Amino acid sequence: MARRSGGRDGRRAARAGAVLEAEPFLTREIPPRVMISTEGLEIIEYNADRILAEVGIEIHHEATVERFRDAGASVAGTRVRFEPGLVRSLVATAPATFTQHARNPARSVQIGGSATVFAPAYGSPFVRDLEGGRRYGSITDFENFVKLAYLQPNLHHSGGTICEPVDLPVNKRHFDMVAAHLRFSDKPFMGSVTAGERAQDTVDMARIVFGEDRVPAETVVMSLINASSPLTWDATMLEAAEVYAANNQACIFTPFILAGAMSPVSAAAVTAQILAESMVGMAAAQLVRPGAPVVLGAFVSTMDMQSGAPTFGTPEPALIMSAVGELARRLGVPMRTGGQLTASKTPDAQAAYESAAVMGPTLAAGTNFVLHAAGWLEGGLTMGYEKFMLDADQLGAHAKVERGFDLSENAQGMTAFHQTEPGQHHLGSAHTLANFQTAFWKSGLADANSFEQWEAEGSKDAETRASEAWKELLAGYEQPALPAGVDQELTEWIERRKATFPDSNV
Amino acid sequence: MARRSGGRDGRRAARAGAVLEAEPFLTREIPPRVMISTEGLEIIEYNADRILAEVGIEIHHEATVERFRDAGASVAGTRVRFEPGLVRSLVATAPATFTQHARNPARSVQIGGSATVFAPAYGSPFVRDLEGGRRYGSITDFENFVKLAYLQPNLHHSGGTICEPVDLPVNKRHFDMVAAHLRFSDKPFMGSVTAGERAQDTVDMARIVFGEDRVPAETVVMSLINASSPLTWDATMLEAAEVYAANNQACIFTPFILAGAMSPVSAAAVTAQILAESMVGMAAAQLVRPGAPVVLGAFVSTMDMQSGAPTFGTPEPALIMSAVGELARRLGVPMRTGGQLTASKTPDAQAAYESAAVMGPTLAAGTNFVLHAAGWLEGGLTMGYEKFMLDADQLGAHAKVERGFDLSENAQGMTAFHQTEPGQHHLGSAHTLANFQTAFWKSGLADANSFEQWEAEGSKDAETRASEAWKELLAGYEQPALPAGVDQELTEWIERRKATFPDSNV
Repeated sequence: MARRSGGRDGRRAARAGAVLEAEPFLTREIPPRVMISTEGLEIIEYNADRILAEVGIEIHHEATVERFRDAGASVAGTRVRFEPGLVRSLVATAPATFTQHARNPARSVQIGGSATVFAPAYGSPFVRDLEGGRRYGSITDFENFVKLAYLQPNLHHSGGTICEPVDLPVNKRHFDMVAAHLRFSDKPFMGSVTAGERAQDTVDMARIVFGEDRVPAETVVMSLINASSPLTWDATMLEAAEVYAANNQACIFTPFILAGAMSPVSAAAVTAQILAESMVGMAAAQLVRPGAPVVLGAFVSTMDMQSGAPTFGTPEPALIMSAVGELARRLGVPMRTGGQLTASKTPDAQAAYESAAVMGPTLAAGTNFVLHAAGWLEGGLTMGYEKFMLDADQLGAHAKVERGFDLSENAQGMTAFHQTEPGQHHLGSAHTLANFQTAFWKSGLADANSFEQWEAEGSKDAETRASEAWKELLAGYEQPALPAGVDQELTEWIERRKATFPDSNV
Repeated sequence: MARRSGGRDGRRAARAGAVLEAEPFLTREIPPRVMISTEGLEIIEYNADRILAEVGIEIHHEATVERFRDAGASVAGTRVRFEPGLVRSLVATAPATFTQHARNPARSVQIGGSATVFAPAYGSPFVRDLEGGRRYGSITDFENFVKLAYLQPNLHHSGGTICEPVDLPVNKRHFDMVAAHLRFSDKPFMGSVTAGERAQDTVDMARIVFGEDRVPAETVVMSLINASSPLTWDATMLEAAEVYAANNQACIFTPFILAGAMSPVSAAAVTAQILAESMVGMAAAQLVRPGAPVVLGAFVSTMDMQSGAPTFGTPEPALIMSAVGELARRLGVPMRTGGQLTASKTPDAQAAYESAAVMGPTLAAGTNFVLHAAGWLEGGLTMGYEKFMLDADQLGAHAKVERGFDLSENAQGMTAFHQTEPGQHHLGSAHTLANFQTAFWKSGLADANSFEQWEAEGSKDAETRASEAWKELLAGYEQPALPAGVDQELTEWIERRKATFPDSNV
């Protein structure tokens, strides 16, 4: 799938190795694991309709409320109610799959269908590395993670607010974040959602880089629009979504649910609420521009009902994710959920067990876009350098499972049984020699050596090895530079825009 | 499912809490994830038949060879070949499911169907704990793990050679291991397989504890019979299997495969070999006693093809396990595979990622008996105390996923949406208060607290917390004592048998 060419690109490809050889997204060849019956799905669809008809949803954005009124909803102030089936019919104009174009066409991703796209974690105020410990994120950390995500063949996407660059003013940092994605990576990226104006800035910057002719004709930005659950969409998010939808850019409408706090406490109720909330968000985008690309999102954690702390890697979200995957396919839209989530403060065994306990079901649900696929620690408060490397490594293993069973003549290997007698080893057989280099996925971070060798090499645990690995990876970074004229235009445009702001940190 | 009674038992139940409240085995309510097509399964069945017809299998046990000759196989010395379909027809007398009785009837387990049974890791010469590090296992360690497995509600089975008690003579240690399982736990257990005579000792000891009338009428021991892959069954294992089958005790016939060494390097070939080898083992047991309980086993690891080191948590075994699960169901026998396997030397992030990457697919394969479900480190060379606790904790989460989606009226929670207005939290709602105690699985070892609280409590990682937990658990152990007469009889029998051995350590 990777672009291959000669000359300068060819030389760079040879140096970068696996990076440019990677497929731009994962194509799943095995079916999802369905953890809920068809009757169960029908019950949840029915309940979502009842919630929207009987309770309704709060919408704190007048333009959206007006569009829903015009479309036949019942409006009382900010409360909007929908007859059963109405919201679903409004979502019908949404595409089942779409392409998010990257500035490197070889890295454009399909969103929906059998495609799965892995993106880094999103939104942490803190970062952590082994030596520096936990500290506030900076624009340098942000750029480091953009570079690391660019270099990781198992991450298909550059993500969005990978960490908050708290050293920059709140009202201007979106310029620097979007510019970092555009400059330091050529993978697809996510835009600003903290104000309608910032969404417009994102679109304008993308237009400089992709070209006037391509935006809004093509989708080049995908953004995360979170509900204020339960059953509320706020003005800021809907303003941003309105800008993106009007410009044919993609939005992921995601209820962000701590079950038991932002929703009822039981999985079946959470699932109905997610469907209700996300459908309303997607419908809002369709009313702005029918056919605007949208994604049904679902972020769910449980909580410790004694302390109120969010908990991850628990069983209930696994069931919910599976159901939401099925509901999205029945609705005919792409689905986002999951990630490698954990409450752990460090990349220890807890972090890994929990991350895996979310990620396995994420893939088994047939998820199309996996935000938080690498780096997440401490319930999302911290982006970890070592965690990022360990998670990204695991993505390679998950991807190979999803590619399914090879049943070619060569893989059946019947000649091998004739080549090697019972009781003899297969290590040197012609079949083994012809296949061993590609037969098994190999972790870049796991240590499979003997105890004695591991001890002789310093008894390094996974975190220590990951610490060495991210520094080495980052040291080898080469920028996939923008054309000089484009880079210059982007710089000048940002300077002009920034100059219009007062120098406040608000 | 748990037995409840008054008086002394009732008091003990109240003290032991979750232990006696646990279900004796997991009943899966969701279907497996099938990673291979029906056509693919047919190809593999066809290939297994071809391997057995064209290459045949080495059987180093004359009685078994003679039985196969009588059943229609073609014999040339130790090489036995089977016409396509012959082995499958011999396996047809095996039960699809059976009960392994525990001495406490409330802990008897179903093997097969929708049941899944979790057992501790098996066979490590070394043990490890946080303070003591890695060292040879002793009978004290063995007994500690029997006690810990007894106390862990998520482990249904006491296992077998949890670690090797290397402080005891090789030729007599099986007495002490079997006695420990019978005395310190009332969960079902596994017997000795290192000689036919030791298998008979296991049966005889079980007969003392369960009663003359119950053995061989009932199955009270299940044992692990490993193939000497590729395509070889050795005399020791088949002698042990012969004793168990003749006594109506269960055997798990398990090819133990490092793919690329003990088999061809590709997943489709490995799967055909597993089916061929295990079917021959199960058929051998059926010829000893038609209807003898058997299990199709599959232990598969990949290897680092540069160093030859076994690797775990890799994608290829996930695919193989899924296929083997389907093949076993098509054959109509229970299936054993998986576990929480890792090459890591310590319970770090590598250990947890790898363990989870085996365990998820183990359950998704619909595995009936999961050996190595807790404690495994370092490719099986080490049994870890902390790893045991962390793994056992995870089993609880896996079990709740497998129990599936609750779609009761209460779980649908439609009243909750009317009780709590949009934008308000659900923490204090009647629905939440009625359900919060059982709504979410809660880890006994994960830390979900704030960074500040975690730091104030000593910044303990998962391994440190697990270290505290196993000591506390073990300190609260109370023996589920055998009736005094039975205990006395067992002691005297073992003394008499041991006295017949020379005092060598061979």
